[in-house]
Amino acid sequence: MIEQFIGYVAAILTTASFVPQAIKTIRTRNTQGISLVMYLMFSTGVLLWFIYGIVTDDIPILVANAVTLCFAVIIMGYKIIYK
Amino acid sequence: MIEQFIGYVAAILTTASFVPQAIKTIRTRNTQGISLVMYLMFSTGVLLWFIYGIVTDDIPILVANAVTLCFAVIIMGYKIIYK
Repeated sequence: MIEQFIGYVAAILTTASFVPQAIKTIRTRNTQGISLVMYLMFSTGVLLWFIYGIVTDDIPILVANAVTLCFAVIIMGYKIIYK
Repeated sequence: MIEQFIGYVAAILTTASFVPQAIKTIRTRNTQGISLVMYLMFSTGVLLWFIYGIVTDDIPILVANAVTLCFAVIIMGYKIIYK
């Protein structure tokens, strides 16, 4: 089904997009332009999506958000440490 | 239902999280720490989620991703203009 294909590509892109940001942040330690409020809200939201995946037994949502949460928390950690 | 409540709060948080980033970027024009590759991948992914919302006739997915797309594109535009 075309819908499922679009959904999977969308999920992969939005999940994987935090990888280049995490790599850039780890390499440069430059977090000036990054909003801490964004990452606090975003990480909380992704954690809730992860819990939603557990509660509704939805493995794709659970896995995608577990991966995103890891990278979002890394970026947030760097933002807190290297202001 | 507790699942729905968790899902709605999660959706609101992940969608709204790009607002403080957009405000910060517009105000400071400092995009040094932001990854262009992240926003290229993320915006494409969110656009596909938006199309997924249209194709599957899922209004919450459509609306949430339309809002996120606006803010992601603003941040990306600033990143391209103010390197």
